[in-house]
Amino acid sequence: MKRNHCSELWDFEDELVDRNGDVTKPTIVLGVDGGATTTISICLSSSTPAAHPNVVARAVTGSSNFNSVSEETAKRALEQSMAEVLMLSRVPRVDVRVVCLALSGVNSPPDAERVLSWLREIFPCESTKCYVYNDAVAALASGTAGRKYGCVLIAGTGTIAYGFNEDGKMARAAGCGPLLGDQGSGHAISSNALAAVMRAHDGRGPPTTLTAAILKKLDLTTPEEIVGWVYADTSWARVAALVPTIKACAKNGDEVAIGILEDAAEELAISVKAVVRALKLSGHDGSEPFPFVMVGGVLEHEEGWDLCKPLIAKVTQAFPGVQAIQPSVEPAVGAALVAWRHNLEDSGSIFSSDFKVDSFSITVEGVVC
Amino acid sequence: MKRNHCSELWDFEDELVDRNGDVTKPTIVLGVDGGATTTISICLSSSTPAAHPNVVARAVTGSSNFNSVSEETAKRALEQSMAEVLMLSRVPRVDVRVVCLALSGVNSPPDAERVLSWLREIFPCESTKCYVYNDAVAALASGTAGRKYGCVLIAGTGTIAYGFNEDGKMARAAGCGPLLGDQGSGHAISSNALAAVMRAHDGRGPPTTLTAAILKKLDLTTPEEIVGWVYADTSWARVAALVPTIKACAKNGDEVAIGILEDAAEELAISVKAVVRALKLSGHDGSEPFPFVMVGGVLEHEEGWDLCKPLIAKVTQAFPGVQAIQPSVEPAVGAALVAWRHNLEDSGSIFSSDFKVDSFSITVEGVVC
Repeated sequence: MKRNHCSELWDFEDELVDRNGDVTKPTIVLGVDGGATTTISICLSSSTPAAHPNVVARAVTGSSNFNSVSEETAKRALEQSMAEVLMLSRVPRVDVRVVCLALSGVNSPPDAERVLSWLREIFPCESTKCYVYNDAVAALASGTAGRKYGCVLIAGTGTIAYGFNEDGKMARAAGCGPLLGDQGSGHAISSNALAAVMRAHDGRGPPTTLTAAILKKLDLTTPEEIVGWVYADTSWARVAALVPTIKACAKNGDEVAIGILEDAAEELAISVKAVVRALKLSGHDGSEPFPFVMVGGVLEHEEGWDLCKPLIAKVTQAFPGVQAIQPSVEPAVGAALVAWRHNLEDSGSIFSSDFKVDSFSITVEGVVC
Repeated sequence: MKRNHCSELWDFEDELVDRNGDVTKPTIVLGVDGGATTTISICLSSSTPAAHPNVVARAVTGSSNFNSVSEETAKRALEQSMAEVLMLSRVPRVDVRVVCLALSGVNSPPDAERVLSWLREIFPCESTKCYVYNDAVAALASGTAGRKYGCVLIAGTGTIAYGFNEDGKMARAAGCGPLLGDQGSGHAISSNALAAVMRAHDGRGPPTTLTAAILKKLDLTTPEEIVGWVYADTSWARVAALVPTIKACAKNGDEVAIGILEDAAEELAISVKAVVRALKLSGHDGSEPFPFVMVGGVLEHEEGWDLCKPLIAKVTQAFPGVQAIQPSVEPAVGAALVAWRHNLEDSGSIFSSDFKVDSFSITVEGVVC
């Protein structure tokens, strides 16, 4: 077997030679969620292609988004992540049936071709099928048990709505960053809250408890100091980190904070509705069922004001058949489930109808996937 | 006379020695408007302190905002600008009664003290009075014939509302840049238009003629290319330069463009009203007259949609006594008029009640001041 770049990591494969004689090899697939911060690989194993899969191992490395790090760094992070998860699983590469790589930064067929060539270098065996998608596919699949069907809304630092219909047609809305009006994102919510503090300070807007809460959170004394804080470092995630503070103020009844979060829910609903309409996911009369998966820090369950409630209400009002899903597993498991389904289809098997993604909410090495 | 740094520029003073014997010296004052792009000096002359002043010369140099260039560069730009305007006027420094420097970046008494010490180096004669203000004072004074009273709204790339009451109390609203919600600025208007193009593209918003107009203006083919264009260079002025294109679309009846400009007018009116309320400029019953000066590219007369009309209507609705003024002279003339008024007050003279700032709309070296 070829050693590739992370040669010492692949050394474990030599120790597994004896197992090559096994007659009942399990079905092994890999899923990878590659983002601008981390790359997470998940190894799924099932006794047969159609049997219920289990998470065998999980590995985390650095960024594999080739827009935020160099191509060389991105390739290393991917290989290291997959080598580690296979080493932890005690599975050689030749035994991997399918690899599904869901990578942020993959926005076009040429992008996908480029990353596919990297993947082919790492998995040279023709028996291993390789697939490359945008990372939104992993997020969608984390709520649909691996099906690439329905609409996913990601609202973290940024926001994007993304979806596929039964024919594989794709549509997306928003996702162009804070300079092009991604309202509803963590960055936009936090920017609006900071602006509300300045408005309260100079008399353009009503007083709000956001002032004291945000100043405390940022360890500042006066609203004027916020100007210096904001322009000292304009990284989007730094601003977006204020979302929990804003949700806490809203939970305590602050009208300004509630207004900002209600506006965000409205904007996020508009993105979702644009994708659902473009793909006709709700059928011709608007009442057909379809999965709607919600992912990201802005939409997470926590103690503060629940943004999902008005969001789901707004989407349901437009499309009564919507099935709102807050996944119990991380996107990397979604990517692995896409791989598992590809293998299922290739093997001509039929999966059990009672297959539930909730059963993946298991702990691997102390981390809930 | 001290030579200062721009020594060769001050050489003209030696040639003026003969004139020192003149008995009827005119009253000479200087006004300087120092910004992040240019520094403009104006020399005003009047036969007596209370006589109507005339613009004698105008000089332009580079940035003197010490936040955007080094202190050394800022000082040089200031000295060069003032030396040039005096050389053009054939007036030695000793004959300057008052210098008024209105500088962007001067936001606190320590800032003003710092710049005053530079000014004192250049004008060491005790007979020359020196004053330092924020550049918004020059903009206000350009509409009030030099009075530091009333409210000025500046809406160019950024926006700020600024004002003084009769007691010299100052108030301001907005002016914290695009990351802190300066709605109504050229940057915000253009960002909203770019976002509207993306919304029309992905189905979140209605179609708009902004799409074709902005793509043509930016020499792009598809809305997707706007994403690359925006993040390639995030300088504020580059984005704000789209305002005339947006005004043209609105003038042609585009509902989306009109909506963006109406929202901007509303936000700008909110800033003005906050300052007027804070300073009680409209008296206790809200009907007293006060000057409201409008300055900056967003508020300029041009062929496109007129944003001033709804803005003035909104401010008038709140404060019926408001006197809306679109200055016919540039802010540097305003700074010079502040200097002229300081001299008038120092000399105990009374100025004519028919003094009109419009009479300064004269051409100096081919440029309308």
